[in-house]
Amino acid sequence: MAALIEENAASAEVLAVYEDIKATRKTDWVNNFWKALANHPPTLKRIWETIKQVMAPGALDPLTKELVYIAVSVTNNCNYCIASHTASARAKGMTEEQLAELLAVIGVANETNRLAVGYGVPVDERFLAAE
Amino acid sequence: MAALIEENAASAEVLAVYEDIKATRKTDWVNNFWKALANHPPTLKRIWETIKQVMAPGALDPLTKELVYIAVSVTNNCNYCIASHTASARAKGMTEEQLAELLAVIGVANETNRLAVGYGVPVDERFLAAE
Amino acid sequence: MAALIEENAASAEVLAVYEDIKATRKTDWVNNFWKALANHPPTLKRIWETIKQVMAPGALDPLTKELVYIAVSVTNNCNYCIASHTASARAKGMTEEQLAELLAVIGVANETNRLAVGYGVPVDERFLAAE
Amino acid sequence: MAALIEENAASAEVLAVYEDIKATRKTDWVNNFWKALANHPPTLKRIWETIKQVMAPGALDPLTKELVYIAVSVTNNCNYCIASHTASARAKGMTEEQLAELLAVIGVANETNRLAVGYGVPVDERFLAAE
Amino acid sequence: MAALIEENAASAEVLAVYEDIKATRKTDWVNNFWKALANHPPTLKRIWETIKQVMAPGALDPLTKELVYIAVSVTNNCNYCIASHTASARAKGMTEEQLAELLAVIGVANETNRLAVGYGVPVDERFLAAE
Amino acid sequence: MAALIEENAASAEVLAVYEDIKATRKTDWVNNFWKALANHPPTLKRIWETIKQVMAPGALDPLTKELVYIAVSVTNNCNYCIASHTASARAKGMTEEQLAELLAVIGVANETNRLAVGYGVPVDERFLAAE
Repeated sequence: MAALIEENAASAEVLAVYEDIKATRKTDWVNNFWKALANHPPTLKRIWETIKQVMAPGALDPLTKELVYIAVSVTNNCNYCIASHTASARAKGMTEEQLAELLAVIGVANETNRLAVGYGVPVDERFLAAE
Repeated sequence: MAALIEENAASAEVLAVYEDIKATRKTDWVNNFWKALANHPPTLKRIWETIKQVMAPGALDPLTKELVYIAVSVTNNCNYCIASHTASARAKGMTEEQLAELLAVIGVANETNRLAVGYGVPVDERFLAAE
Repeated sequence: MAALIEENAASAEVLAVYEDIKATRKTDWVNNFWKALANHPPTLKRIWETIKQVMAPGALDPLTKELVYIAVSVTNNCNYCIASHTASARAKGMTEEQLAELLAVIGVANETNRLAVGYGVPVDERFLAAE
Repeated sequence: MAALIEENAASAEVLAVYEDIKATRKTDWVNNFWKALANHPPTLKRIWETIKQVMAPGALDPLTKELVYIAVSVTNNCNYCIASHTASARAKGMTEEQLAELLAVIGVANETNRLAVGYGVPVDERFLAAE
Repeated sequence: MAALIEENAASAEVLAVYEDIKATRKTDWVNNFWKALANHPPTLKRIWETIKQVMAPGALDPLTKELVYIAVSVTNNCNYCIASHTASARAKGMTEEQLAELLAVIGVANETNRLAVGYGVPVDERFLAAE
Repeated sequence: MAALIEENAASAEVLAVYEDIKATRKTDWVNNFWKALANHPPTLKRIWETIKQVMAPGALDPLTKELVYIAVSVTNNCNYCIASHTASARAKGMTEEQLAELLAVIGVANETNRLAVGYGVPVDERFLAAE
């Protein structure tokens, strides 16, 4: 487990990212993920810039993006990521019913993924033609 | 690779599922996934009933469910599933810009999942308390 | 893709392993996996010795071991391994009905694995006590 | 972590599933997995019906199915599932020697899966022809 | 499969990235990965900037970074990534003997990862204390 | 969780492996991984012989091999393996800056692996020709 760089121990470079996180998210705290990344300021800065760009409202709304993030995190078995993105999704309006349906889809997709691979199903011509 | 059970070679039990797939989806064909599962009628029937239940409109709309399905399939590296659910998502209105944003979120989630694990980030008390 | 070392191009060291594979398996050919590993004779020899030890009859019979091998290979999405171990399992008596049930279990296990992780289910005291 | 729905807090719909689990398994308790799924009764009911169908005696015996379940769960790194299905397998007669051989096969299969992918081994014509 | 944006069909924004790829790598061509990302110029630009930063010489030399990239790609079963990073590693001096040892380490790590999980090995106090 | 076989409870066969581990590593203790494998002496012996062979200095130096081991372990989400191989890598001279760059490469490789799969990028002719 990496040391967590708290705000009072952070360099100016790290603190600037923490401040941007708090301002962008309109919150008064920084979660542990960033405090761990702060052990390597270039990674902290790069990942934060990436998250700001990729998770911003766009053709997909921010809540949908959080649901997708949860789907990846559950499939990869990342407990931290499930906890943090479930919190983010709830903050963006996800209901418990939506979470339950999300988990059901994730479960079934993992099942049919293995069935498609196990049966060696060839991609249909119509799917290829549509690309 | 499993044999694909075409409609003209299907038993009445299999054919009934094929007909329900076509009626439910308002389409005139059945894609290869189902023709492979038809090698084992109980699995064919069970998976189709599951998909009908889980992918139906609910607290989450059908397009969001397809996006989640793609996220799982890309993370699991299932080419068949990516092809079939990308086609389904497009049929439900997914634009190319939405697909591009979806893939960007999937990519970043896979990156930060590994960073959270690699740094061994402990779950924040606030996330635990919120559950 | 690595070059495949055919028997007529193999060193004495590699050939000795090929001969042992054929003798142990009572067959007249060597499949591509070994011809690829032959690019690095220490790996070829080590993996073959490992397979001979681990897949031999023991507390579990050889067919059960092949079914487990298929389960891992489908979960990892390894097409070569699915093809080769499905062939091995059939040679050891696996029926098509058994293969279908195997794939059904693999699919459901992948689904419930994700549900257990997604819901963050804590291990029951009784399971811990039983260990 | 989801709330666990204990029997005294369960709806009639959930309780009916709990009773069927206990009756089918001839046991007096329900493990946490089901109490977590009970947050979404349609998922609870669907997964229980699926497990009853897929894990029932068939062309494969129930113990073999449990071994396959463990193989998938170890490969997916699902601690809950490893604990619960190891308990189920022991209840169905799995010995410690069988568990040790099972883990050995799982380990080696994961190793050779990566070697087959890393060397890019092409599927042998004989394997394709046999399908 | 996404369309590949060839240089003669690329926008000025995309072309600028292609030119930077060629200049940075001292080569006269752009591989398909970038031509696929060019379907979404913000992703193309972001990933290229990320790769330039992360894969640059630093505390780890560029060849070691390529070996790590191959290890991840083999574990994730990404054929494209194995092909492209094996080519990059060879261009940076990787020998066939080094590749063979790399694949052996990847294989064994995947095996022992599953054994550690399967046996549920607790982290040693000395490892925790050292962090 | 498997029982850990301590030295004072080990058979002569197990003890011989423990002694070889300590002598080879010039250390006075045996970490939990081996104490868990000792539940099945043939696996203990086989894995230790494998590790000795594969992790020995060769065309790749031992530190590079540890970095690759960490990359696989992070991608597979094996906490035990991350802890033990991070300790091994540090003992072989890995600096904190090297660890940070290693984690950055692992993260980015996981991201681009999914992008390559998600976009369905075909392998370039030049990469195929080079093999």
